[in-house]
Amino acid sequence: MAFDRLIEKIIETRNPTVAGLDPKLDYVPASIRNACFEKYGKTLEGAAAALLEFNKRLIDSICDIVPAVKPQAAYYEMYGWQGVKALAETIAYAKAKGMFVITDGKRNDIGTTMEAYATAHLGSTDVAGESVEAFGADALTVNGYLGTDGIKPLAKICAECDKGIFVLVKTSNPSSGELQDMKLENGATVYEQMGRMCESWGADLMGKYGYSAVGAVVGATYPGQLAEMREKAPHTFFLVPGYGAQGGGAEDAKNAFDKNGLGAIINSSRGIMCAWKKQGLTEEDFAEAARAEAIRMKEDILNTIGEIKY
Amino acid sequence: MAFDRLIEKIIETRNPTVAGLDPKLDYVPASIRNACFEKYGKTLEGAAAALLEFNKRLIDSICDIVPAVKPQAAYYEMYGWQGVKALAETIAYAKAKGMFVITDGKRNDIGTTMEAYATAHLGSTDVAGESVEAFGADALTVNGYLGTDGIKPLAKICAECDKGIFVLVKTSNPSSGELQDMKLENGATVYEQMGRMCESWGADLMGKYGYSAVGAVVGATYPGQLAEMREKAPHTFFLVPGYGAQGGGAEDAKNAFDKNGLGAIINSSRGIMCAWKKQGLTEEDFAEAARAEAIRMKEDILNTIGEIKY
Repeated sequence: MAFDRLIEKIIETRNPTVAGLDPKLDYVPASIRNACFEKYGKTLEGAAAALLEFNKRLIDSICDIVPAVKPQAAYYEMYGWQGVKALAETIAYAKAKGMFVITDGKRNDIGTTMEAYATAHLGSTDVAGESVEAFGADALTVNGYLGTDGIKPLAKICAECDKGIFVLVKTSNPSSGELQDMKLENGATVYEQMGRMCESWGADLMGKYGYSAVGAVVGATYPGQLAEMREKAPHTFFLVPGYGAQGGGAEDAKNAFDKNGLGAIINSSRGIMCAWKKQGLTEEDFAEAARAEAIRMKEDILNTIGEIKY
Repeated sequence: MAFDRLIEKIIETRNPTVAGLDPKLDYVPASIRNACFEKYGKTLEGAAAALLEFNKRLIDSICDIVPAVKPQAAYYEMYGWQGVKALAETIAYAKAKGMFVITDGKRNDIGTTMEAYATAHLGSTDVAGESVEAFGADALTVNGYLGTDGIKPLAKICAECDKGIFVLVKTSNPSSGELQDMKLENGATVYEQMGRMCESWGADLMGKYGYSAVGAVVGATYPGQLAEMREKAPHTFFLVPGYGAQGGGAEDAKNAFDKNGLGAIINSSRGIMCAWKKQGLTEEDFAEAARAEAIRMKEDILNTIGEIKY
């Protein structure tokens, strides 16, 4: 229950960061791409095989120092069901290497349909009496616009299967404020209201570190709101995008953490996947470059928040 | 551009309804299930093959009288990448039968990632110079919580590829009001604000029937809000869930239409897929029962809105 498993991975690695796996074909070195196209043709199957190989090498290079990966579903769906198969295989590979896997799918729907998403991404599907994991991630990002009915089926699976969710509260993109920053008649902003709902949804799913299974997405690009929400949603674990390529720095991300250095995990996707560019290396060195960047990022954040007190 | 193609299918069939394809394995008759399990085992592959066969027979039985189908992504993802393959094959099959296909995925993300979703579901993916449709639906449901950045990439593909989107405005579920009905300081509700954003996002994507390529999801279970939004979002085409199994009737759904009987398409999923139950038939008769229910539903709605004046 709750994010205890994730928190323990963070404590073990002394590293509150997650590597986003949002692979575009352009990020994959020519050697991998060409080998896959040779085997499968210039097809979705070939592209998906290239993404999977790229992911595996990234995972191999960081799995002992980074606690979690966050594959972004969009970049797999872009390559059809073949890409989605690569997503499932990426999740399985990362789990086998001991990593905590957050599928970034921002799923949302009404009750009965949300049950299907919860089953798909976090639970097990019943096939004529056989129980099969469809994707089997440890956590899923979701959108709470539909209210409690859309969250309850997830909360049920979080409790039963020891999984977690991250609800979008304040996203990292430039236009996130258009709706999220609007003031409600009750004085709260829309994102603040969503944060309150997270606290309430998580109340029965509390873990031993004081955080529930219902986390929130709050962007590092809005450090003021990050600090505000850390205070107002004290039992809500934060997934923080926006560090690195999107412009957020360690000083911004710092606001996501509690006084013990817990309470949040900071994501970097392009920063890690394409680290070779900044390091003056070639694309063939992407995995070593990713590891170096993961270490640099971890130190950057730890230097700012101080040690993790566990 | 815009929903002209959908509207023309509606005029041609004199039928403003869409059949939701949300197949659960329980809905699939034993004869189909058993044949698939015999061939593929009690596996995700076997389940997916059963869903696909079920969908094909449904499509065959209604494609001449119903303009559109709406597969709900969750029910395919539940069966893993094999289920997602069945989704892609369902979309292709329905399109080959001349139907307009709305993928109900409620996707949402920030700009660059939303581009990937737009490419995946509505556009074409570039694979080393080859252009391949990953899923290739005609329209996609999306969630606008992230604001303009999350919609722009879709609008671009709508314009280029003659596709459409439906943004969640007021959803049909019981708890939809928790956030959506809250009043903002500017006097509007959250759902009304989202409706305004739809009107603004669609302004440059207007079609010849007065509706843009940016539609909205507004539930039949809230007929008051449906009437309100029809008035306040006059250029926004509505996808209306909640008829039938969720409790909405034709009198409720009526509020979604303009004076010419256009402006909306009413969805029924379980009502059509499981029509045999209400008709006292056996599950093996599901396809004929679905056709009879599709005709009944069409007449129910046409009797209420009057004729389609085109």
